Amino acid sequence: MSYPQLSFTNTSFAPDSFISKKRNVVFKNTIPYQLKVLRDTGTYDAYKLKWRESYRPDPEHWPVPADFHLFWDSDIAKWIESACYSLHEQKNDEIENAIHELVEMMSTAQRDDGYLNIHYIVVEPEKRFTNLRDMHELYNCGHLIEAALAHHDFFRNNRFLDIMLKYVDLLCKTFGPGVHQKHGYPGHPELELALLRLHAVTGDPKHLALGKYFIEERGNPKGVDGQHYYTWEAAKRGERLYERPATCPARNSYWYQQAHKPIADQTTIEGHSVRAVYLLTGVADLQHKKAGGQDYATALKKLWKNMVEKRMYPTGGIGAIDQWEGFGIDYFLPQSTDEGGCYAETCASIGVMMLAERLLQLEFDSEYADIMELSFYNAVLGGMSCDGKKFSYENQLASSAGKLSERKEWFTCACCPPNVSRLLGSIGGYMWSHKYEPEVREATIRIHMFGSATLSFGVGGDDQVGLTQMSNWPWEGEVKFTLTAPIDVSISIDLRIPGWADEWKITPTPPSTELERGYLNLPTTYLKANPHFVLDIPIKARFLSPHPFTNQNTVTIARGSIIYCIEDADNPWVEDHFKTLLFDSSKSHIKEAQKTDKDTGESYIALIADGGACSFIQMHAKACPGILSGAAKAGNEGSVDELHFVPFYYRANRKGKGQMRVGLRKQ
Amino acid sequence: MSYPQLSFTNTSFAPDSFISKKRNVVFKNTIPYQLKVLRDTGTYDAYKLKWRESYRPDPEHWPVPADFHLFWDSDIAKWIESACYSLHEQKNDEIENAIHELVEMMSTAQRDDGYLNIHYIVVEPEKRFTNLRDMHELYNCGHLIEAALAHHDFFRNNRFLDIMLKYVDLLCKTFGPGVHQKHGYPGHPELELALLRLHAVTGDPKHLALGKYFIEERGNPKGVDGQHYYTWEAAKRGERLYERPATCPARNSYWYQQAHKPIADQTTIEGHSVRAVYLLTGVADLQHKKAGGQDYATALKKLWKNMVEKRMYPTGGIGAIDQWEGFGIDYFLPQSTDEGGCYAETCASIGVMMLAERLLQLEFDSEYADIMELSFYNAVLGGMSCDGKKFSYENQLASSAGKLSERKEWFTCACCPPNVSRLLGSIGGYMWSHKYEPEVREATIRIHMFGSATLSFGVGGDDQVGLTQMSNWPWEGEVKFTLTAPIDVSISIDLRIPGWADEWKITPTPPSTELERGYLNLPTTYLKANPHFVLDIPIKARFLSPHPFTNQNTVTIARGSIIYCIEDADNPWVEDHFKTLLFDSSKSHIKEAQKTDKDTGESYIALIADGGACSFIQMHAKACPGILSGAAKAGNEGSVDELHFVPFYYRANRKGKGQMRVGLRKQ
Repeated sequence: MSYPQLSFTNTSFAPDSFISKKRNVVFKNTIPYQLKVLRDTGTYDAYKLKWRESYRPDPEHWPVPADFHLFWDSDIAKWIESACYSLHEQKNDEIENAIHELVEMMSTAQRDDGYLNIHYIVVEPEKRFTNLRDMHELYNCGHLIEAALAHHDFFRNNRFLDIMLKYVDLLCKTFGPGVHQKHGYPGHPELELALLRLHAVTGDPKHLALGKYFIEERGNPKGVDGQHYYTWEAAKRGERLYERPATCPARNSYWYQQAHKPIADQTTIEGHSVRAVYLLTGVADLQHKKAGGQDYATALKKLWKNMVEKRMYPTGGIGAIDQWEGFGIDYFLPQSTDEGGCYAETCASIGVMMLAERLLQLEFDSEYADIMELSFYNAVLGGMSCDGKKFSYENQLASSAGKLSERKEWFTCACCPPNVSRLLGSIGGYMWSHKYEPEVREATIRIHMFGSATLSFGVGGDDQVGLTQMSNWPWEGEVKFTLTAPIDVSISIDLRIPGWADEWKITPTPPSTELERGYLNLPTTYLKANPHFVLDIPIKARFLSPHPFTNQNTVTIARGSIIYCIEDADNPWVEDHFKTLLFDSSKSHIKEAQKTDKDTGESYIALIADGGACSFIQMHAKACPGILSGAAKAGNEGSVDELHFVPFYYRANRKGKGQMRVGLRKQ
Repeated sequence: MSYPQLSFTNTSFAPDSFISKKRNVVFKNTIPYQLKVLRDTGTYDAYKLKWRESYRPDPEHWPVPADFHLFWDSDIAKWIESACYSLHEQKNDEIENAIHELVEMMSTAQRDDGYLNIHYIVVEPEKRFTNLRDMHELYNCGHLIEAALAHHDFFRNNRFLDIMLKYVDLLCKTFGPGVHQKHGYPGHPELELALLRLHAVTGDPKHLALGKYFIEERGNPKGVDGQHYYTWEAAKRGERLYERPATCPARNSYWYQQAHKPIADQTTIEGHSVRAVYLLTGVADLQHKKAGGQDYATALKKLWKNMVEKRMYPTGGIGAIDQWEGFGIDYFLPQSTDEGGCYAETCASIGVMMLAERLLQLEFDSEYADIMELSFYNAVLGGMSCDGKKFSYENQLASSAGKLSERKEWFTCACCPPNVSRLLGSIGGYMWSHKYEPEVREATIRIHMFGSATLSFGVGGDDQVGLTQMSNWPWEGEVKFTLTAPIDVSISIDLRIPGWADEWKITPTPPSTELERGYLNLPTTYLKANPHFVLDIPIKARFLSPHPFTNQNTVTIARGSIIYCIEDADNPWVEDHFKTLLFDSSKSHIKEAQKTDKDTGESYIALIADGGACSFIQMHAKACPGILSGAAKAGNEGSVDELHFVPFYYRANRKGKGQMRVGLRKQ
C-alpha cells in the first residue's frame, strides 16, 4: 500500500502547468519565507531549550500558553517535511543546511529516555504526559515522525528517523493496556496516522500496535478506574469540575476531540474538524491494514457520508463553528460569521484530502476523488496567496464587516501555512496511484486528478512505465495521455470521470464507456492499441445550490473543478459584502474571459454574468419580526451592468475592501 | 404614572370574551393547580426552613443546585402575586388561606436583620450576597416585592409588605456606593423594576435610590478595586479563572447578564432574554421617573429597535440560543433546534410586554403596542395549554425529532407557568391607559389592545368614567365602543390602529382620520356627539416573511393579531415536521373555518389553504456539498389536498405526533 507522501516522487510535473506553478511558488517563495518566519519568531532556535519570557502562562487560551510555543515542534516538523519534498524538485543549500541544523538541535535536545518536546522539556519538565487532552504533546510527535519519514526518504539516512524511533520507543513503553501503562491517547489526533505510516517503513509491529491502541482506546467511557481517560486525567491534574477550555461549550465536551465514544460507535462527524479528519485518516489506514480489533468500514463510511452530505461547504471547506473550529449540526452551513458562522480551516480541507485518499484506497469510488479535487482547488489552494507569502487560516464563504476577506502574513498558531506547503509538495501522490505485480508483469494505474504531469515507475531492472497527461486543467477539459511501457508489461488504467461532468468523450473510443463507481476502465488491449488517447470534458459554468435544509437559498457558480466567488476588486460598487445582491441564474448569460493579472501574475478564466440577472433587495416596509411577504423584493435601483466572478482560491490577492461572497442570494 | 399591575383593577371583562375565557382558565384551573404543585414539590413548605436531601449540591447546573430550590422564593412569590390578582375577580377561600399561611411562614422565616431567602438561610447561611452573579438571591427578592405589592393592593394590609420593607431596608444598607457597602447588582434583573414599583407605592426615596444604584452601577468595568464586580466577587469566592457556568460560552461572558458594559453604552440587546427585558423594564421606569443620573432614552430606543427589528421571531418570541436562553447575533432566527436554535421563552415574551408597556408610557407610539399585542396573542398565550394545566417553557417555531412540539405539566425551574398567570391576571392594565386631570376635569384614554371589556375610573366623588369595548376580537375586527362620563368631564381618546391593519374605518367618521404615531385621536367634541362609535378593521389572512438576512425563505400566515402554524393534528400525513413542505402563497386560496374543538373547548378560526399551493422538495440528485441548482425542486408526489392552519398559541393542545411549523418554506 502506497502513501502519497512517498509515492509523489513518481510524478514529475510539466513546467508552467497550473499545479506546477503553484508548487514553484511554494518551493521558491513559501519554504524560504517560512524558514525566515521560523527564525524571526524564535521557533527555529527553540530546541536550544532556552527559557523565554513568552513561555510564561497567560490566561487567555488556558491551558495552552499564549505564545502558542506549544505548536512549535509541529511548525518545525511541517516545515522540514515540506522542505524535504521541495528538495526532490530542486536543490537548495540554505534549506538543506537549515534542515540539518534543526535535526542536530533536536538530537541534542532529546532526553536520554527519548523524550522530545519543547514545552515539556523547558517549561514544565515534571508534567509530561499529564494533559493529553489539551497540550498537543503527542500531536507534535506525530508531525515529527512524518517529518522524519520525509527526511529519511530524501536524505536516505536515519539521522532524524533514529531520533523519532527512540522517542516512539518511549511512547510504546508509556502507553498501552498494561497495568503500569497510561491508557490515554492524543487530544489532537495526528500521531495515529504517523505511527501507521512509520510502521509501513519500519515494519516494526509495536509501531502498528501503538497506533492501533490509540485508535481503539479512544472514547472508552471507562478507560481508567471506571472513568473516561480525560476525566481521570483532569482530576489527577487537580482541575475542577467546571473548569473548561474556551473551545468547549460545555464541560466534558469530548466530542471536540472525537473522544465522546469509541470510534466504531460514532455516527456523525463532530468537533474540531482538523482533528476529526486526521483521526479518520489514521482509522482508514488501520482498516486498510486490516489490523483493527474491529471493523471500521461502516463507521468510516457513515462519518464520511455525514461530513460530505450534511456538513461540507460547496468549496470543500468543513467546520461552521468558530468556537471549536469545527462541525455544527447537520446542514448548519452559514457562509459568514454574521450569518452564524463559517470556519472552513485550510488544514481541515487538507485533512479531507488525506482522508479521501485513504478511503479511495479502501473503497475504490470516485466520490472520494471528487471531494479530493473539490477541496484541493478551492478550500486548500485558497489558503495561500499567489505569491505564497500570505495565508488564510479560515476560508469563509462570505466576508462581513466583522471579518473581511483578507490574508495574513503569519499566525501565532501557524498550522495552516506549512500544511499547504507539504500538501503541494506531495500532490503528485494524490493525482494517481499505481500497482505493479511483478509475477504476472501487470500494472494498474488509477487516475484521480488531472493536470500536466508524468507518472513513472519501475517494473523490474531498468524497465519503466510512464504515463503522461498533458492538459490546461483546470481551465480546459481536454487531457491528452501518452503511455509508454515495456512490451511485455500489461497495463490497465482506471480513469476518473468527475462527478460534475455531464458530458465527456474518450478518443479513440474504448470498448466500453460504462463507468464503474465513477471510473472508466481502459483495458490492456485498448491501451496496447492506443498508447495515445484523449479525454475530453467540456468545461462550462454551472450553477450549484446547497441542500435546501441549509436554509441557504443561494446559487454558486462553478466551472469544472473551480468554485467561483464575487469580489469587490472586480465589482467596486459593493458596500454590503453582496448581502442584498440577488441573482437570477435562469436569466443569466455567463461569459468567460481569459485573464492574466499584471500584479499577481495569475492566469485564470474569469466569469461575467450580465446585469439582467442581478438585482438588489429593496425593503418596502420597515423591518420588524414579520414583514408582509413581498415587502422585501427585488428592485432595479442600483443595478449593475455585469457581475464579475473569479476563482474562490484567487480571492483576497488584489487590493480591495475585503468584500467577497460565494453563494449569491437567489432572486 | 400607573402600572398595569395596579391599574388592571379598572378593567372588567365581558364574560365569554376571548381574554375573559383565558383568564377564567387561569383563575379556575391554573392557580389551584399551581398551588397543588407547590405543595407536591415541597416548595410550599420551604419557608419552614427544614433542610432537605434535595438541597445537596449537584454538579450538573453549577453553581445552581440541581433541584432548583434556588427559585422557590420566586415560585411562591409569583403564585401569590397571580393569586392576589385572581381574588379581585373571584373569591376563593382556599387560595386566600394559602396566601395567608405562606406570608405567615415567611414572617417566621425572616431573619432578625430582615434577610429572607430559602437557600441562604437553610443551605449556606454564611454565604449570603457572595454570588450575585449566579444565585438569583436578589431576583427572588424582586419577585417577593412584586407579590407583596399585589398582596397589599388586594388585602389592604401591610402584613406581607412590611416583611419586604424590612428586607429592603437591609438591602439599602448592604448595597450602594458607600465605602462599606457592596457595589454589586443582581445577576438576574427583576429587583430593579420591583424597587421602582415599590417606590411608587411607598414614596420612600431610598427605594428609588437603590433601584437606581443597581441600574447605574451595572456593567461598571471598575466597580470594585479596579475590577468588574462579578470578577472581583468570583475571586473572593475562590473561583478559578476558567471555571464558568454551563450557560457561558466563554469566561466572563457578562453580556449574559447584560453587565458587559454600562447600560447607557449598550447598543445591541444581548444575553439571557428574560434578564434583558426585565432589566430594560426597570430602566424605562427609571427614565420615566426622570430619576436616572443620565439619559437612557437613546439606549432604550436602540436596544428595543435592535430586538424588534433584528432579534425577534414573527410570533413575538425572543431568544434563539438554547445555551444562554437568549439572543443570538442579528438576524439569527432559526425556527427549530435542528436548524441551529430557537428558544423564545414564555417569560421573555411576558417581559417584552412589560417593557413595551413602559416604553409606551415613555414615548407614545403604536409600535410598542403592536409588539405587545403580537407577543400576547402568540408567544405568551402559547405558553399555556387550553386547560391551564400544561405549559411550554420554550416556544419554538418548528418541531424536530429532537424537540417535539409538546407541553409539560411542570418544570424544575418553574418560572413560566406562574408568569403567564400573573400576566393574564393583570392584562386589563395593558389594554388601555388613562389619565385624569382633576383641575380641568379632563381625561385621556389610550386604547392599546382590543377585546370585550370596560374601563372605569373615578373622576371625583362618585363620578365615574366608563368606556366599554365589545368585540369578537381577535377573530373579528369590529369593535363597538360606548363611552359614559359626567357631562362636565372632557374626554379624549387615542385609539391604536394596529400596524398590520391596511384598512380600517371609524363610524361615525371623526373630524380627522390622520394617525399620529399609529394612534387616531378622537377629540372631546367628537366623543360628546358620538358616545357610541365603532372601529372596523377587516380581518383576513396575510402572508408574512422574516427579513431576508435571516436566511429564512419562509412564509407565515397571520390573521389580525394571530400568527398561525401547521400541526400534524390537522395534517396527519406529515412525517418530517413539514421540513420538505413547500408553500406557494401566490397560488394559495385561504379559506376560513370557525371551529370549536370538542376535547379542548377552544373556539377559533382555522385557516385552510388549498393543495394547489403545496408541494414537496424532491431531491433529484444525491446530496453533496453543492448540488446542481434545480436538482432539489418541487415535485407533485405526495401532494395533499389541503393544508390546515391553527393559531400558534393553540398548538400542542390535541393529541398528535408533536409535529408543527410556523414558517413554511417558499416554493
